[in-house]
Amino acid sequence: MDELKARILSEGKILPGHIIKVGSFLNHQVDTALMGRMADEFARHFDISKITKILTIEASGIALAAVCSYKWGIPLLFAKKAKSDNIENGLFCSEIYSYTYKKNVTVMVESELLLPEDRVLIMDDFLANGEAIRGLTDLVKEAGATLEGIGIAVEKGFQGGGDRFRKAGIDIYSLAVIESTEDDGTINFRN
Amino acid sequence: MDELKARILSEGKILPGHIIKVGSFLNHQVDTALMGRMADEFARHFDISKITKILTIEASGIALAAVCSYKWGIPLLFAKKAKSDNIENGLFCSEIYSYTYKKNVTVMVESELLLPEDRVLIMDDFLANGEAIRGLTDLVKEAGATLEGIGIAVEKGFQGGGDRFRKAGIDIYSLAVIESTEDDGTINFRN
Repeated sequence: MDELKARILSEGKILPGHIIKVGSFLNHQVDTALMGRMADEFARHFDISKITKILTIEASGIALAAVCSYKWGIPLLFAKKAKSDNIENGLFCSEIYSYTYKKNVTVMVESELLLPEDRVLIMDDFLANGEAIRGLTDLVKEAGATLEGIGIAVEKGFQGGGDRFRKAGIDIYSLAVIESTEDDGTINFRN
Repeated sequence: MDELKARILSEGKILPGHIIKVGSFLNHQVDTALMGRMADEFARHFDISKITKILTIEASGIALAAVCSYKWGIPLLFAKKAKSDNIENGLFCSEIYSYTYKKNVTVMVESELLLPEDRVLIMDDFLANGEAIRGLTDLVKEAGATLEGIGIAVEKGFQGGGDRFRKAGIDIYSLAVIESTEDDGTINFRN
């Protein structure tokens, strides 16, 4: 999506460790008008009429998923993160490794909110190594629901998470895939 | 707001400790169509044309604030929570006590995203003791910005947080104020 790539180039900052900061419009301050146009772009790729539930994970994925949910009239469900010793009954859970927190985190949804008949679109603002998304696909499997696809705003292609889902035959669509970043701050997108 | 009160009565569950669970439509699964109508109700109370920024806090406030931001065409900024030893430069910070996590948590926004000329509407899905909202008002003060008001979906009136802001002369509008809950699960709203 050209508009998103242009915003990443004009406002993104590269920090040490290939961290890409886009907090001025994506995941701290949020340009929800841009997100509305991102929803339109996702709707050109996915057959939205099939989707019964949008699944994301707290925190920063919620803004994008909420705007898509509102525009499409499809309920949103966001998975919560918890310490493993704090899990109640009636939950679907998956353990992921959080590179942000450098520890294992349990992602969970209440089992009564994700049903076998649900056709799920997983969404998130960022995909890097893919651990968070892998956790969400686990929850969909645990529920016996159908995964219709994965919609991502910004994928860090060089970290390989997205390509692992592609190789597994999952319909994953990222609006901007960053192939590499250079020491001088240059950002190269995948074609 | 009658529709919200009706949903709380039909779907809300009272857990021990006066915890009110509304995860089927407000803060786990999210009915964003309802949130669109909540945005309309807030817009009847607040002069939205004055607002330059919506400020909320991760995680569950983001969905409501994102839908309002999208409908009103006003940028959204969500404060992040961090451990106190993890604070960089260039941030406005406030320490709050989290009753959920039973410890102090630092809430923060990047200082370049909250400006002295900003006219801020603080929004959240829940208000109980008011610590999170107090932290957000601190950030607004620190930025030298103007607080135009506070918009809340569900206020637990019996915990006193909302009334403290009212006494301080802040324009706070909660769409449903729960005055008390009873042992048999009855929920009483404030008139």
